[in-house]
Amino acid sequence: MSTSRLESFSDGVIAVAITLLVLNIAVPHQPLQLAHDLGHQWPTYAAYATSFITIGIIWINHHVVIGRLARTDHSILMLNLVLLMTIGVIPFGTALFAQYLNETHGSHLAAGIYAGILLLMSVAFATLNWQILFRKPHLLGADLDLTQRRKIQARFMTGLVPYVVATGVAVASAYATLAICATVAVFYALPIASTPAS
Amino acid sequence: MSTSRLESFSDGVIAVAITLLVLNIAVPHQPLQLAHDLGHQWPTYAAYATSFITIGIIWINHHVVIGRLARTDHSILMLNLVLLMTIGVIPFGTALFAQYLNETHGSHLAAGIYAGILLLMSVAFATLNWQILFRKPHLLGADLDLTQRRKIQARFMTGLVPYVVATGVAVASAYATLAICATVAVFYALPIASTPAS
Amino acid sequence: MSTSRLESFSDGVIAVAITLLVLNIAVPHQPLQLAHDLGHQWPTYAAYATSFITIGIIWINHHVVIGRLARTDHSILMLNLVLLMTIGVIPFGTALFAQYLNETHGSHLAAGIYAGILLLMSVAFATLNWQILFRKPHLLGADLDLTQRRKIQARFMTGLVPYVVATGVAVASAYATLAICATVAVFYALPIASTPAS
Amino acid sequence: MSTSRLESFSDGVIAVAITLLVLNIAVPHQPLQLAHDLGHQWPTYAAYATSFITIGIIWINHHVVIGRLARTDHSILMLNLVLLMTIGVIPFGTALFAQYLNETHGSHLAAGIYAGILLLMSVAFATLNWQILFRKPHLLGADLDLTQRRKIQARFMTGLVPYVVATGVAVASAYATLAICATVAVFYALPIASTPAS
Repeated sequence: MSTSRLESFSDGVIAVAITLLVLNIAVPHQPLQLAHDLGHQWPTYAAYATSFITIGIIWINHHVVIGRLARTDHSILMLNLVLLMTIGVIPFGTALFAQYLNETHGSHLAAGIYAGILLLMSVAFATLNWQILFRKPHLLGADLDLTQRRKIQARFMTGLVPYVVATGVAVASAYATLAICATVAVFYALPIASTPAS
Repeated sequence: MSTSRLESFSDGVIAVAITLLVLNIAVPHQPLQLAHDLGHQWPTYAAYATSFITIGIIWINHHVVIGRLARTDHSILMLNLVLLMTIGVIPFGTALFAQYLNETHGSHLAAGIYAGILLLMSVAFATLNWQILFRKPHLLGADLDLTQRRKIQARFMTGLVPYVVATGVAVASAYATLAICATVAVFYALPIASTPAS
Repeated sequence: MSTSRLESFSDGVIAVAITLLVLNIAVPHQPLQLAHDLGHQWPTYAAYATSFITIGIIWINHHVVIGRLARTDHSILMLNLVLLMTIGVIPFGTALFAQYLNETHGSHLAAGIYAGILLLMSVAFATLNWQILFRKPHLLGADLDLTQRRKIQARFMTGLVPYVVATGVAVASAYATLAICATVAVFYALPIASTPAS
Repeated sequence: MSTSRLESFSDGVIAVAITLLVLNIAVPHQPLQLAHDLGHQWPTYAAYATSFITIGIIWINHHVVIGRLARTDHSILMLNLVLLMTIGVIPFGTALFAQYLNETHGSHLAAGIYAGILLLMSVAFATLNWQILFRKPHLLGADLDLTQRRKIQARFMTGLVPYVVATGVAVASAYATLAICATVAVFYALPIASTPAS
């Protein structure tokens, strides 16, 4: 199978997931305290921005990873589907995280689930990349020597670390989890950083 | 009509349907029992994963089936539209199934409707494939002899069987219905299995 | 501007609108009367199927109409945007119609609004087609003589009639409105009929 | 990176955002006063039409701006992502504005936020355009002399003015904000006007 329809389907799923994030931002119902309520739900905006940039970076990386392929096979389609499934869950994790960040109870669990979903997504992505580079190198469009492939995969593995930390730190502070996830998003967005896939 | 816009429109509908599934996963509202409530809604996660993989496999099969065509006609566009309509209903069936799986009343009916929707989808898909292979073979891009066409169609008919069973078994146990549908999804996802369309 | 991105954007909007229709099908909340409640909301299913097929036929026609163009201009982009806006409202009209069809009060108004939205959509589509065929014939990919163009436009104008009737008949019976709209959808879906645009 | 997948992803996000706007139009629940309730929510329709046309014009401009590029780089992808993020928030701003326009309290704030989101979007768009024309001219597909580039950028800067006014005027009247935003949308939609990007 050629990669073009795989790309267009993945683009579609990622575009819908990233745009559905806005449904988590609720319109407050009390006119007399609109300003207060809008301010009070700042975790929703922070989670929206963090997840939006994160999914956007996933999309850029996905383009790079799939762009290396000349064609795909069943195993790549399926690992890609698992990756899309974890991306598809991000709007739920974002909603959960945003709703519980300021709560006395539940914030640690919600933060752990949010970072855990991003970690799962990163693991699915690293697995897809590993399958392509090390199990199916004959499907690549251009030859990559072992050193190059190891370097690319190492960057993916490094990309897992902050999400492991963000998931673990949720036990101590949900705000720390948010800070780490937001920092990762901003870091990859800055011109100085290179994304895991490039 | 060429098949490329048919593919891109179908990709769009399938991508939206698969991503809308996440809207079925509700954020619990009781902070004091968040862990309990998140655990209690496990049928939602099971139904999400089952439907996500199932729709993903439909998408792969759809690519194979439409990829055989050099061009389309009105009958194929319409049978494809009916297929998309059954795919579009899957998020509703998934929500219904997930909400009633653990209920004392309604679980059998909900399970039957869920499996019934997947069965309807499979029938629509088998009909579309049959129309292409046996009624419109002149629209195919490459010649397929009768033996090959019969073999492909036979695999589609075989693919109906588990959904017939899953629908029937709903009378006895909604969990059995879920087990069968999830097994079908995992089976086609594994590298050993070939999808009905290939 | 080339027509390819116009097509892909329009495909996207139409694919999202057609798939959002499923959000109108609610999961009943009373386990003890699930079968009754699911049966009671049959207008939702009828409206879903009618709107799904109708939007699907719009998509096919849209492909034919835009496919005649070699390139587009500002006026075509804007008339296309107005068409997409009326298509985008169909999920609301469908929800309104489905919820009020069986009500003692409001059903006539809801039916009139539903058919009125479809009528508006048809008027927007006929206007777009008229703009292309009679005001911007130099943008067409192939020459069409005046007789051919008049014939195509006449079919679009004929396509308005059932929706005028369906809107008017809503004063008498919401069920008649549904019957007409559903009949139009089935009529164009059948192999014997040719769609307005072809 | 080539621009084609950037365009298709952006098209997807914009198509989803524009179609999600319809979810803001609620189906009233009181059959006895359906006509009154439908009439009473006219701000919803006005906001829907304004935002739909506005996003549609963003899409057209986006096509023109990206169409000038032969290829993209990381900075353009990221500024484009920020633009998409502001577009993704428009459905929320529209819902907020529509719900509070007729309220005694909160209407000024809601109007200011709505116009502020459109202003942010315009600033993000002008920044993306500036980055392309003045920081990355070597990525352009065709040479544009400095005069041409300044003229294009000046039109983008002029496009900010009405949104600055609409945001500021929200302190006095939410209706004035709506009037300005709707006028901008209609102005760019009319054949006499040229969009900022062209």
